[in-house]
Amino acid sequence: MKQILLMAVMIIATACSAQNGNKLPDPNLKRQTRSVMETYKQRKSERSFSTKELSRQDLADLLWAAQGVNREDGKLTMPSCMNWQEIRLYVFDQKGVSLYDPKSHSLQNVAEGDKRQLIAGRQDFVMQAPVSLLMVADLEKNGHTDARSREMAAVDAGICTQNICLFCAAAGLSTVPRASMEHDKIVELLGLTQNQIPMMNCPVGYPKE
Amino acid sequence: MKQILLMAVMIIATACSAQNGNKLPDPNLKRQTRSVMETYKQRKSERSFSTKELSRQDLADLLWAAQGVNREDGKLTMPSCMNWQEIRLYVFDQKGVSLYDPKSHSLQNVAEGDKRQLIAGRQDFVMQAPVSLLMVADLEKNGHTDARSREMAAVDAGICTQNICLFCAAAGLSTVPRASMEHDKIVELLGLTQNQIPMMNCPVGYPKE
Repeated sequence: MKQILLMAVMIIATACSAQNGNKLPDPNLKRQTRSVMETYKQRKSERSFSTKELSRQDLADLLWAAQGVNREDGKLTMPSCMNWQEIRLYVFDQKGVSLYDPKSHSLQNVAEGDKRQLIAGRQDFVMQAPVSLLMVADLEKNGHTDARSREMAAVDAGICTQNICLFCAAAGLSTVPRASMEHDKIVELLGLTQNQIPMMNCPVGYPKE
Repeated sequence: MKQILLMAVMIIATACSAQNGNKLPDPNLKRQTRSVMETYKQRKSERSFSTKELSRQDLADLLWAAQGVNREDGKLTMPSCMNWQEIRLYVFDQKGVSLYDPKSHSLQNVAEGDKRQLIAGRQDFVMQAPVSLLMVADLEKNGHTDARSREMAAVDAGICTQNICLFCAAAGLSTVPRASMEHDKIVELLGLTQNQIPMMNCPVGYPKE
């Protein structure tokens, strides 16, 4: 009986994972981009976007550059304080909201429907961008919820932000780092605690033609 | 009499600037580095270094990548909250401490002698690195000294940190972002106020052979 129950649980778990887990294409390490020096030269904040959807490969490469696993030991393209890996990266698009899982390089659905307005707040230009990335500092993850740890998490959100900005500059995508957003509504939508803090967001899209 | 005084002041100012201002070689925008994708793949924290001094060109390219002016309007390779440009970047090496001035792409001497121990604290490996970069959040600059602005400055320090980490990964230099340092002694050495906050540092060197 115990074995049958265990098997049933495993089947349900697998089914749920297949439904919610959304594997991304492998990052294209041979991708042609600007050179590194030209990338620093071209890095700038853009507040207008083509409304064209991001290709699946562009989204996959962007998320991997932002905080993908880049080594066999599971460490990431972004360093973090004490390797806490406390920055959660959410993707807001027309279809819904999903959470990037670096380990499996996949997206987990967390909300249905277009919630980009919560990122935009009063800045309408954000709605042009097909995707907005949201960085949430999850202080619960390691149990360090003091002021110093929060400051370090803000540093880490900045590190992730610049990974996004430089990838966009390299790949010819437009983005701008923002701190403003509908903070309370996002907390409610994502079911965050007071120690899981929406810190920064980056609308991303192709350049406006 | 007024004119003579004015002229004297100008001569002294020019002399001081020639003595303290230390123009860096132009950033080499044609520099050969890893590709951008390979740079993200290779980004990692390194805690051992060759003690060999950084070449002047490598230092110049590193500082420009970190927070150099990359456009005619004076904006930088790093975005900052409301374009405050509040992150000061100091260079600690065997000769002394200097402050990077993005506008003139030059170093201003601020202290004589090897002060790297203040960055190292108890972590001896830092002393192997010929250079340590220190990021100070200068909340005085724009007069925004509240907690929210400090958090935004921490984000900006993170942004600058990742510019450094990615340049190092691209150029085959070693670095590790650190928050620990001899905070009070650094404040004293640099004559900082309570609103000019040492946030992050990065020892940088060639890889240990």
